[in-house]
Amino acid sequence: MSAQITLEFVSGDVDAKPRQVTAEPGELLIEVARRGGLEIEATCGERGRCRSCRVKLLAGDLPPPSIMDTVQLGHEEVQERFRLGCQTQVTGDAKILIAPPKSEIGHKLMSLGGGRPETDQASMALDSGVTKYLIEVELPTDENHQTSDEEEVLRQLPDHVSATIPAEVLRQLPAVLREQFGKVTVTTFLDEIIDLAAGDTTGHKYGMAFDIGTTSVVGALIDLNTGVELVAVGGVNPQSPYGGDLMSRIAYVQEDPKRLQTLRAKIVGALNGFIKEACEKADINPRHIHKLVVVGNTCMHHIFVGIDPTYVGLAPYAPSVRRPIVLPGQDLLLKTVPFARVCLLPIIAGFVGADTVAAALATRIYESDDYRALVDIGTNGEVVMGKRGRLMACSAPAGPALEGAQIRHGMRGALGAIEKVSIDDDVQCQVIGNTAPMGICGSGLVDGVAAMLDAGVLEESGLINVETRPKLAEKLAQRLREKDNRAEFVLSWGEESGKSEDISINQSDIRQLQLAKGAICSGVMMLQKVLDIENLQLKEVYLCGGFGNYISTRSAVRIKLLPDFPLDRVIYFGNAAGLGAKMALLSEVERERAATLAREIEHVSLATHPDFQEIFVEALKFPPTLAEDKGADVGAENHQDDEVMTVY
Amino acid sequence: MSAQITLEFVSGDVDAKPRQVTAEPGELLIEVARRGGLEIEATCGERGRCRSCRVKLLAGDLPPPSIMDTVQLGHEEVQERFRLGCQTQVTGDAKILIAPPKSEIGHKLMSLGGGRPETDQASMALDSGVTKYLIEVELPTDENHQTSDEEEVLRQLPDHVSATIPAEVLRQLPAVLREQFGKVTVTTFLDEIIDLAAGDTTGHKYGMAFDIGTTSVVGALIDLNTGVELVAVGGVNPQSPYGGDLMSRIAYVQEDPKRLQTLRAKIVGALNGFIKEACEKADINPRHIHKLVVVGNTCMHHIFVGIDPTYVGLAPYAPSVRRPIVLPGQDLLLKTVPFARVCLLPIIAGFVGADTVAAALATRIYESDDYRALVDIGTNGEVVMGKRGRLMACSAPAGPALEGAQIRHGMRGALGAIEKVSIDDDVQCQVIGNTAPMGICGSGLVDGVAAMLDAGVLEESGLINVETRPKLAEKLAQRLREKDNRAEFVLSWGEESGKSEDISINQSDIRQLQLAKGAICSGVMMLQKVLDIENLQLKEVYLCGGFGNYISTRSAVRIKLLPDFPLDRVIYFGNAAGLGAKMALLSEVERERAATLAREIEHVSLATHPDFQEIFVEALKFPPTLAEDKGADVGAENHQDDEVMTVY
Repeated sequence: MSAQITLEFVSGDVDAKPRQVTAEPGELLIEVARRGGLEIEATCGERGRCRSCRVKLLAGDLPPPSIMDTVQLGHEEVQERFRLGCQTQVTGDAKILIAPPKSEIGHKLMSLGGGRPETDQASMALDSGVTKYLIEVELPTDENHQTSDEEEVLRQLPDHVSATIPAEVLRQLPAVLREQFGKVTVTTFLDEIIDLAAGDTTGHKYGMAFDIGTTSVVGALIDLNTGVELVAVGGVNPQSPYGGDLMSRIAYVQEDPKRLQTLRAKIVGALNGFIKEACEKADINPRHIHKLVVVGNTCMHHIFVGIDPTYVGLAPYAPSVRRPIVLPGQDLLLKTVPFARVCLLPIIAGFVGADTVAAALATRIYESDDYRALVDIGTNGEVVMGKRGRLMACSAPAGPALEGAQIRHGMRGALGAIEKVSIDDDVQCQVIGNTAPMGICGSGLVDGVAAMLDAGVLEESGLINVETRPKLAEKLAQRLREKDNRAEFVLSWGEESGKSEDISINQSDIRQLQLAKGAICSGVMMLQKVLDIENLQLKEVYLCGGFGNYISTRSAVRIKLLPDFPLDRVIYFGNAAGLGAKMALLSEVERERAATLAREIEHVSLATHPDFQEIFVEALKFPPTLAEDKGADVGAENHQDDEVMTVY
Repeated sequence: MSAQITLEFVSGDVDAKPRQVTAEPGELLIEVARRGGLEIEATCGERGRCRSCRVKLLAGDLPPPSIMDTVQLGHEEVQERFRLGCQTQVTGDAKILIAPPKSEIGHKLMSLGGGRPETDQASMALDSGVTKYLIEVELPTDENHQTSDEEEVLRQLPDHVSATIPAEVLRQLPAVLREQFGKVTVTTFLDEIIDLAAGDTTGHKYGMAFDIGTTSVVGALIDLNTGVELVAVGGVNPQSPYGGDLMSRIAYVQEDPKRLQTLRAKIVGALNGFIKEACEKADINPRHIHKLVVVGNTCMHHIFVGIDPTYVGLAPYAPSVRRPIVLPGQDLLLKTVPFARVCLLPIIAGFVGADTVAAALATRIYESDDYRALVDIGTNGEVVMGKRGRLMACSAPAGPALEGAQIRHGMRGALGAIEKVSIDDDVQCQVIGNTAPMGICGSGLVDGVAAMLDAGVLEESGLINVETRPKLAEKLAQRLREKDNRAEFVLSWGEESGKSEDISINQSDIRQLQLAKGAICSGVMMLQKVLDIENLQLKEVYLCGGFGNYISTRSAVRIKLLPDFPLDRVIYFGNAAGLGAKMALLSEVERERAATLAREIEHVSLATHPDFQEIFVEALKFPPTLAEDKGADVGAENHQDDEVMTVY
């Protein structure tokens, strides 16, 4: 299909007229504009390394942002439909504003593009801290014999590079130095020599960002020379069989300190596997991965480093270390990348870890003049709320229900997972990969329960009441049934999908979800209370995390995963922790900012706050209907009496 | 036996009269003096940690110096009969000068004690760089929850201590911190945290010094709190089966780089064994060894660190690294002391290694105003010559003959080794341990050959000529014989010693010794030539190394192991490299001085010097008789035609 596409370009110059250019799908915006006689500056040579070719899609389909869009423009601009012209492919008819960076055109763009005020620092330069030097070393001779290989290498490097070569690199030195007669590439990280190789390898400079979640692990292989993301990898955290949530995993270690090594081996093995897989897919040598950024909650962080998390699980839940850690891969048993520098982002508190710092980094709420919040949903949920100069964070133990675990038909957001549900006179499910459904992932569960509430299948108390069948449409009534003494609602009939088993949501699943969403919602409400701000004072709330797919913000508010915020202020952000890790990978400025952030964000301990129980009971409820008065629902409390929740 | 001893004390005060005090053997000098009403100052509380109780033995038996004598007074003062009063036991009648440090009494002592001018820096303070802090850490509480174990530990330490705890120590932190409710001992090396332990371990601070020779390894366990040497350990270098000298050991590695790991495992295993042995003997916990100083030639150094020595064995024999290296024990595979800091002294050149630097440190020739030299005899011999501001060094490949190897009846200087030989009308042998002789060690070989030359059993050409029998005393003539077509001279009859085998020196042994002593002597002669100094311009020559026992300096000059120096200027020093290692262990000032020395000492390459061959031929000769004119011996050259020597 090569349908003709028409692009209409407008420029920031108010006197210039719009210009129409036709294009083929897949063409780069900057090329189409050039063909139309519009010169868009590309200071970096169209490599996505500067902001000079910035455009804004005023109308038409918005192509997904590349990592370089996010890197150069920042998340907010990307959200506001800004893209880099040199990175964006034409997908359909569009109206495009040629929008050079604000620093160059000042307020003119503001009025045209309607962007919110922000500083230029929001853009991120490509400074991974990894530098490669190609040098020609003079090998010792009879005349120049009182020297050493090390000294001759250092003589060829700039003065700011460290004055020694570490032992693990020295061990490679004699042979590597002579393999190509003194021609070697020296790799430094922050001016410290970390590796060297025979010949010229300056073109190969890669990094990986990892987000180690309690339930799942995701990683990305990125070219540090260009900022381009080459491969994404991920899977289940292999520690999962040793405990579905943080507390049970910590309890596993508490019983026998040797088990720390078991869990450590599991996650280290997984990372080594992902690194190998990514390198094979991208056809690169793992030796050319020079920097890794790893984020995760405090417990995952400690286990990965090899620190016993026992005391993270005991009041007052203190971590053993909070500062950023940088270690060679081999010190972390990453045998695939022994020489790479592994940077762990810092920690805020025992249950507000490096993943939360990364999410704060990615959402840039630290530079907001209005109150904003991020809600990072994983097995443990974290909330950061505040504005420039005053940020607070808390942790809410959601459990793995929102990731599809501990739900009878729950599954990860993978092929075959029901990811969206709508109900009219029957149930419609959207399945990842459009295949026969195999189970329900987190976004499907939230959507399903919201739809069940709207359809009256689920009572506001959280009860699946089979007695309501007479009030329902026929097909819905059939789906509402009692099985094994438990009420359940069938989303997908086994015979329809060709599977032997019906896929349903039962009363127990509802309770799991209620605990999960109640925990998270109470975290949000608590920070609002501590900061003394009403719902409407929050300009935006970023819903972050990997639920399998885009969670419906409407459904999230419908089930009171979040308080009753106006829907246009709730923004799905995706994996903010993972994006923050990538930003710290590509930019040392961002990585340093993470250290500052971790020091500045104030931790609010839910456990010790006197108002917590009251807030939690309120948060467990399902609201009667969206945006209506709360308080009418009194039944919920009766059903929560037997639910116990430990918070930290 | 408790014979009464009389000590006569004199003081530096010229008006004071001598005072006689009686004493028991074993009493400390300072106590005897005090009993006699003479107050000797002991600023450090008689712990050997200052110089205030310095005495000089003007007459009487000289007790052997303790390590603290050497540490505090320096080698030269010890040689000049100075001792610390608080460390020296009474052994017999003596005349003792109470001699406070020069800084306090200026020139008065000079005229009395006849000491040579030297600076006060010659004394060495006890500053190992290892510090232990006993702290009480406040464990995190609900009120103080946004902190970490690391931060709370650092809060209790002085500001000059590093701001982070390294990962390997962090891994111990959570449990150790809570074992005694926050009471922990933190160990630092140069203000960097290297270990921590529950409770108070400040009284346990130990170190080890190792000298890794090509043929043998020696080590000492020293209390860093007191400077006292607790245990000495040592044995054969287990790499020996892979090549008796440096070049053959390097050749072994050159054939297959994997063999580096074999040799490395051998020496690392030996050191782990010695550390374990020393700790068991002294009944200390290896975890309380916090610092090690390791010296050795460049090849031993590189293999120990894990660096391929291949290129050290190829012209121009460049090392891969020369600077001082400091690494945690675990990075060097020293599993017995994973947390200790292992300090390798620096290297001068490919064949002038850290052992030579240590020997220069121990002999303090760097501060001499006159020309001095040290000759360190091992499998490889090194010579350092010069004076303050101008020092030169060279390396001479002696081979292991002087250590008793590659000699038919050779053995290490252990029980049963013939260590001294004298000949009149028959042969008298002194055997280590006064047991039946089992073989000949290095000092015995030098002594034996010197005696054979004097007795006319050995011709000046180096030939054992059985035809000379008629000219010899009867018993000597019987010992001179031909066996298996080879002339030999029997030192010890098997039937006399109760052994089945006669112990003899044969023609091949003589050739091995000749090559060894020729190599070393040519090194000395070469540096004299480069520095342009005659024999008499050398104020002193220190003969260093482990030959099994004190080598006879007369015999050394007799066989021309050294040029024809006046005998009173040749001083046996013992294991200077080992002593230098101990000094660097006890004093960071000395360890820093080693780095300066390694930079300042100029390496002279024998291999590339045009005059070397001529000098070597001259050095191979046996001189006709001691202190007589040289040049009469022309026969030696004829016998050396087939000898080939590689020098570097």
